[in-house]
Amino acid sequence: MFFVGCNAHSKDVIDQIIVDEAKLLINRGLNSNIGFEIVESLTTEVGPRLAGTEAEKRARDWGEKKFKELEFSNIRSEPFSVDHWERRHEHVQIISPFPQNLVVTTLGGSVSTPTGGLSGDIVSFPTLQALKDAPLSGLEGKVVFVDEYMTRTQGGSGYGIAVKKRSGAANEAGKRGAIAALIRSVGTDHHRFAHTGQMTYEKDIKKVPVAALSAPDADQLQRALERGDVKVKLSLHVEAKGKVESGNVIAEIPGLTDEIVLIGAHLDSWDLGTGAIDDGAGIGITVGAAKLIMDLNKVPKRTIRVVMFGSEEVGLVGARAYAEKYKSSLHKHIVGAESDFGAGRIWKFDTNFAPEKLYLGDAIHKILEPLGIGRGDNNASGGPDIGPIRELGVPAVTLKQNGWDYFDYHHTADDTLDKIDPSDMAQNVAAYAAFTWIVANLDDDFRSTE
Amino acid sequence: MFFVGCNAHSKDVIDQIIVDEAKLLINRGLNSNIGFEIVESLTTEVGPRLAGTEAEKRARDWGEKKFKELEFSNIRSEPFSVDHWERRHEHVQIISPFPQNLVVTTLGGSVSTPTGGLSGDIVSFPTLQALKDAPLSGLEGKVVFVDEYMTRTQGGSGYGIAVKKRSGAANEAGKRGAIAALIRSVGTDHHRFAHTGQMTYEKDIKKVPVAALSAPDADQLQRALERGDVKVKLSLHVEAKGKVESGNVIAEIPGLTDEIVLIGAHLDSWDLGTGAIDDGAGIGITVGAAKLIMDLNKVPKRTIRVVMFGSEEVGLVGARAYAEKYKSSLHKHIVGAESDFGAGRIWKFDTNFAPEKLYLGDAIHKILEPLGIGRGDNNASGGPDIGPIRELGVPAVTLKQNGWDYFDYHHTADDTLDKIDPSDMAQNVAAYAAFTWIVANLDDDFRSTE
Repeated sequence: MFFVGCNAHSKDVIDQIIVDEAKLLINRGLNSNIGFEIVESLTTEVGPRLAGTEAEKRARDWGEKKFKELEFSNIRSEPFSVDHWERRHEHVQIISPFPQNLVVTTLGGSVSTPTGGLSGDIVSFPTLQALKDAPLSGLEGKVVFVDEYMTRTQGGSGYGIAVKKRSGAANEAGKRGAIAALIRSVGTDHHRFAHTGQMTYEKDIKKVPVAALSAPDADQLQRALERGDVKVKLSLHVEAKGKVESGNVIAEIPGLTDEIVLIGAHLDSWDLGTGAIDDGAGIGITVGAAKLIMDLNKVPKRTIRVVMFGSEEVGLVGARAYAEKYKSSLHKHIVGAESDFGAGRIWKFDTNFAPEKLYLGDAIHKILEPLGIGRGDNNASGGPDIGPIRELGVPAVTLKQNGWDYFDYHHTADDTLDKIDPSDMAQNVAAYAAFTWIVANLDDDFRSTE
Repeated sequence: MFFVGCNAHSKDVIDQIIVDEAKLLINRGLNSNIGFEIVESLTTEVGPRLAGTEAEKRARDWGEKKFKELEFSNIRSEPFSVDHWERRHEHVQIISPFPQNLVVTTLGGSVSTPTGGLSGDIVSFPTLQALKDAPLSGLEGKVVFVDEYMTRTQGGSGYGIAVKKRSGAANEAGKRGAIAALIRSVGTDHHRFAHTGQMTYEKDIKKVPVAALSAPDADQLQRALERGDVKVKLSLHVEAKGKVESGNVIAEIPGLTDEIVLIGAHLDSWDLGTGAIDDGAGIGITVGAAKLIMDLNKVPKRTIRVVMFGSEEVGLVGARAYAEKYKSSLHKHIVGAESDFGAGRIWKFDTNFAPEKLYLGDAIHKILEPLGIGRGDNNASGGPDIGPIRELGVPAVTLKQNGWDYFDYHHTADDTLDKIDPSDMAQNVAAYAAFTWIVANLDDDFRSTE
């Protein structure tokens, strides 16, 4: 038995000097702590940095300062506006039959409860679909509880399913006359942390407030419901000031051409934790990788642009602003890759290239393979903030991280620096540095030649 | 090579019928879910039950009802008074140089901060001893931070060392003119949960408020301090109403004599979690074990008394009330054993017997050995609530549980039912049932014959 290799050898496709430099970058990345140092700096010196807040402004200042300190070029902050929203107070309790407090967090975008709170009997649905299947009336005065579980998967596919209830619960509850909604947190842990995240109301429906319960509290509510009717009281107070300023922070390693290799991460975080895995890690990985490239003291063929996107968490607002601002030069964007799935090791290399350019992906992958990275598929999203430019034709790469425990911490108070393993960060930095350097020095691109 | 066994065979010391019944109880215990069902009931139907509160009263009502439902005899609630203390509000933040909130919990017994809170620069000490070694002045206007770590050990010995700062930090800070104290939580986890617990002021010193930071927040404060001066603001608001009612809930399986075999656990919990591992588990284990014994439908030689102690967490108040109330009959207490170290498997059998009665401990141990229980030492405390009667001469046994992860959850909001493995509970119930049945039917006791 024998195999016929279909993949080109890297050295046939990628200049041997570049291959050697990429290997040097991998070696330096694995032996560098720069990625961890950057996320340590961001999470300590700024901490939580919710979109549109003064804290996010401090994060942009930090970003510009960090880029300067690391001697990047063309550093700038590019402002855009975002809808303000901040939680002020949240308190939910079972008032009968077993009085006790429940750990909750109001979902981003939710309206407040009326002054003095609201109370009502719980009507529980095992899934969002079960709520959708319920008649369009009959929940008047009730508090809907969507107790849908999320499945743990390495790649995060469980999230795509479970997250639908984050908007869906309040929307479907409101349509049916309910006064509020509660959901089991979109998460995989079993600690007493509620997971926040953005929800969006559909147009022209009754807006009801919505909060997420931690998994143990969802269990507790479930057990109470097994014993009979349960009445809860919700006091959720949020503030929404209208449009406020946010921004993307951008820096470059200028190349010989104006073609752009874009890597980045998002700078904003949810308000509960310090945004270490989401997405301080991505900032550390991509900025750290670019810094290692700068330290080669060589001018790449293409310009390497590092983007710290603002206001990702509240709806990719910075990514959309970027796509709009650069729409006339997107054809010069060779590839986009965002690191936004925690700090776990990269285990596969996904591309979103024209079919006839997949051999380039295979060749790049060969360089990354010694890092324990497999060749993935050609359906790469590139990361959330790459979405808007990918949809406009920019090829994308996802250096897919191990997300096995990502949703244990995601959008909780527990997303803090101690959840990051510096050696995992180093593997990410090594991979990003090598990948970015190779693409910045290729002759070809990943678009269709037709 | 051969071994000479020094231990008596169980059958020589313990009547074979009792040995067989103990083995039957072990078998039934391992196949029963009663222990878990009891803690499920308590944590769901009562939830948090802080000493001296209305919730602890509901727990006593639950206890009496549960004993009745299980058909125990001589059920009663025995009241005593306890100092009231409840947290109302707690908020701590770094105000400069990196403004952000810190996750804290006020320690039980702490005074409030002044209205409007207080703020001051942090002075950090790596250990309580380092604070004690500091001069008796020089901390005026400062907030002391005792950043001492706790070591994870299976037996919990790390706690005894680390817990000293819980009272010590505020006392030593106050003596030195500081305005408040913060400690790294007494715990072994790395989640964003602060661990509460009782602190006591020394007499005639300045009482300063004290709170515990979660481990990630202590890390964060440490990192901020590495960069320079850090100013914090504390708003800790507690209420203390003076003396209020608490109580022990007691039930019995009457024996042929008025000799008492006492097993029990404490009914109160801290206010943050639902008190599943501390100490709903102990309630489930000991009540469940006694129920299995009742189901034998045999009258034991000695009376088996099950005690749900009140107000343990705030200073063994129920245990002291018990010792006082029963001081004239303590000589008839054959042994005391409390389950109060979580829900992990029992791994050793410690005694506190007269030396000449150790052969009885060895014989009992032989029955328990198939449960994976080793013979421990003769320094058993019997559990916190056994302390007061042990000090008055009552022999004690500790069925020592695996406490490897106990201090990950201890006194936090995360002490909830999902942290308990029902099969571990069953092993505990099996061991308690067998142990209790044997001792209740022995001819001899564990006191010195001199």
